Amino acid sequence: MLTYDLSGRGRAPLYEYLSDCLRRDILSGRLAVGDRLPSRRALAEHLGVSLITVDAAYGLLLDEGCVEARPRRGYYVASPALRGPDGQARAEAPREPEAPRLLRLAGSRMDAGLFPAALWARLTRRVLSEDPDALLRSAPHEGLTELREAIAAYLRGSKGLDLRAEQVIIGAGAEFLYLLTAQFFAGASIAVEDPGYPKIRQVYAAAGAGCIPLPLDGRGLSLSALERSGAAVAHISPAHQFPTGIVTPMPRRLALHDWARSTGGYIIEDDYDGEFGARQRPLPTLAGIDRAGRVIYMSTFSQTVSPALRIGFLVLPERLCGLWRERLGFYSCAVPSLEQQVLARFISGGYYERHLNRLRKAAREKRAALCAAIEASPLAPIAALPEPGAGVHLLLRMDTPLSDAEARRRGEEHGLALSFLSDYAASPGHAAQHTLVINCAALPASRLNEAVSGLAKVFA
Amino acid sequence: MLTYDLSGRGRAPLYEYLSDCLRRDILSGRLAVGDRLPSRRALAEHLGVSLITVDAAYGLLLDEGCVEARPRRGYYVASPALRGPDGQARAEAPREPEAPRLLRLAGSRMDAGLFPAALWARLTRRVLSEDPDALLRSAPHEGLTELREAIAAYLRGSKGLDLRAEQVIIGAGAEFLYLLTAQFFAGASIAVEDPGYPKIRQVYAAAGAGCIPLPLDGRGLSLSALERSGAAVAHISPAHQFPTGIVTPMPRRLALHDWARSTGGYIIEDDYDGEFGARQRPLPTLAGIDRAGRVIYMSTFSQTVSPALRIGFLVLPERLCGLWRERLGFYSCAVPSLEQQVLARFISGGYYERHLNRLRKAAREKRAALCAAIEASPLAPIAALPEPGAGVHLLLRMDTPLSDAEARRRGEEHGLALSFLSDYAASPGHAAQHTLVINCAALPASRLNEAVSGLAKVFA
Repeated sequence: MLTYDLSGRGRAPLYEYLSDCLRRDILSGRLAVGDRLPSRRALAEHLGVSLITVDAAYGLLLDEGCVEARPRRGYYVASPALRGPDGQARAEAPREPEAPRLLRLAGSRMDAGLFPAALWARLTRRVLSEDPDALLRSAPHEGLTELREAIAAYLRGSKGLDLRAEQVIIGAGAEFLYLLTAQFFAGASIAVEDPGYPKIRQVYAAAGAGCIPLPLDGRGLSLSALERSGAAVAHISPAHQFPTGIVTPMPRRLALHDWARSTGGYIIEDDYDGEFGARQRPLPTLAGIDRAGRVIYMSTFSQTVSPALRIGFLVLPERLCGLWRERLGFYSCAVPSLEQQVLARFISGGYYERHLNRLRKAAREKRAALCAAIEASPLAPIAALPEPGAGVHLLLRMDTPLSDAEARRRGEEHGLALSFLSDYAASPGHAAQHTLVINCAALPASRLNEAVSGLAKVFA
Repeated sequence: MLTYDLSGRGRAPLYEYLSDCLRRDILSGRLAVGDRLPSRRALAEHLGVSLITVDAAYGLLLDEGCVEARPRRGYYVASPALRGPDGQARAEAPREPEAPRLLRLAGSRMDAGLFPAALWARLTRRVLSEDPDALLRSAPHEGLTELREAIAAYLRGSKGLDLRAEQVIIGAGAEFLYLLTAQFFAGASIAVEDPGYPKIRQVYAAAGAGCIPLPLDGRGLSLSALERSGAAVAHISPAHQFPTGIVTPMPRRLALHDWARSTGGYIIEDDYDGEFGARQRPLPTLAGIDRAGRVIYMSTFSQTVSPALRIGFLVLPERLCGLWRERLGFYSCAVPSLEQQVLARFISGGYYERHLNRLRKAAREKRAALCAAIEASPLAPIAALPEPGAGVHLLLRMDTPLSDAEARRRGEEHGLALSFLSDYAASPGHAAQHTLVINCAALPASRLNEAVSGLAKVFA
């Protein structure tokens, strides 16, 4: 129990002195955020003071926000004391990373309003009540059968993939799957798209894989560069390249597949936002046309359900399933069983498809609204509006003398965090300057106008 | 839509023929478990048959259990057809891995009866109702602040560790943390205990780390072998070595710490079952005596909450926090936010400590009951009972002419899956033969007698 010598308090009222003692302990870290304080009654008895004194001391700390009362549970340290015992504001940085004050135009977070939180909570409650043992049963390496079956059925129906649930491997998000893939292909050099999603390069590099950034042409990964590179594996996103939005046309897809077949190479088809397909009728996936067992299909629920869920999956060609298990089967499945069960019900109950339809509609509408707002703004003469289309990301090429670094600085002055195509290049000077990357899915609809008027000021 | 040529049905009733067609598609995998069948009305219209025909065909499949009706949602393929179109039972193996029929004496699963499922479900429901946005908020790389604070407060109180929440890194289970650690120390050779937990060697090897298995002496990792090895990092479990149960005494701990300080090496202190401490008053942890910033402390909730939870954590020395973030901070935290919030409440609400007390008591009692049952059995003259103590694992040295392989085979005949100390050795012939490894925590109390009488038959 907390013990303070209250005799040294001088002329300060007892409750103030007690709150100073508590605050000092919070400041010093002796009491940390999340620690429970003794009940008022227990502390009063322990220190031999009245309940009113403890009440008032706790009240001061509550007012300052460094203690919080949780109904029926008591008092907890809520944040490091913001004022020192002298009542002065503390200079030390707050522990929580500061909430971003800038409006991020290429954020990775979904628009919170679209997440079916109530439904998800209901499914979770249902799993917990119908199958409490779900919390205790570890999933096998490949993931829970229920979820693998649900994903396989979904892919058969919506992507025309011909697969069995046994080919599906569940992983704790795309990055973890990149890591496992790098270990599966240990020693092989892996070609990646440049510009591209930086995490892919980072994970492969951290895993010790030789990572070869290759340029894009208008149809996706340059085939001639791939042939020259000597890479054994190509990691590509033909459905909708990030960040350029390039959709790889069918002849290139076939040529890439030919490359894999003729060289004995493998393709990792990263369909990270394939559900937002850039067209009404998406092209066949590489995995769908693969008869040679040379394509690993990969996707995640981060763009469609929640990035906080951390669930992604691979579809292995049948011929690699045994080798995968042999090389990596010792790893436990890193996704909690509860989440897997809830997601399985979300998909097999048909909720996922309905939710996707809502997301696609919202993304289309936001994209259209953003383009309309730009057309009606002072940006119109200098912004090259993209082709109409779907997809989450949008590239906006600006006719501006500002360098990307200057534009970024000016963006911050006007409350915007800007991303540029050049940010995603592996090597400087590689990607075109003056091209903004905007993620329509992450931008709340209510802030579109703020984004456009901010951009107008940046490029005025 | 499913399309069948119903003209070829011969003399079979239409509804039977239709059910045969559907069953064949389920058998072949064209329709897989979880797939939704067309509504009865839609299929009747599509095939040009009456609703009654479809009704009757679905009814047959429902009776067989290979289709299920979900209220207000329709008909779903429920299991691969169990009988072929000829009505014969199918020989094909079921898709689910078979439930283990053998009683595993060294299982990794907790005794299900001890998991506080109702409380966990209640906390989950509370997070979902109080903070539905929790499902959407990604955790930063290091994990959610609430959970890091809760773990830090717990370690300060129960382990006497002097740490700030900022030093805690949350990871998706111990294996994922091994993987990150291997990447953090990329290029360094890592000494591991032999015999030891095989996953440690497997993960380090898969991550490309040079992994050096070193022998143990009676006090843990051999210091002279460590000094000769040239390893830069030592991964050890001084609190309770797995599987030998050795507790590293204080002088050896200090010597190991001296090794790290004088060579510039690092120690990974793996406290995987530290909560079951082999003594009443556990020895200070290496992290607790580390003033040089050379010890990374690591533990998991798999032994104490649930292996299906997949949450573990590291405590970095303060001086490594910046470097860790620089090298690995690009990884997202792979644990879903919901689980992190629930676990944070479980710990900070005081439930975790109470739960641990129950687990420890159960493990002590089971250990005592197991020893008593062995003493009262025909095994008594040939089994060297271990010293009294706590801890989850127990070693039983047998005076037997049977080789471990022979004993294992005989165990299977008598319904037991046996593990031996020799199973955990990196190199054959390294660890002593004839020593059983038993995990008291995983063994249900109701099956202790079955285990002992089975062992008596094996070694009779």
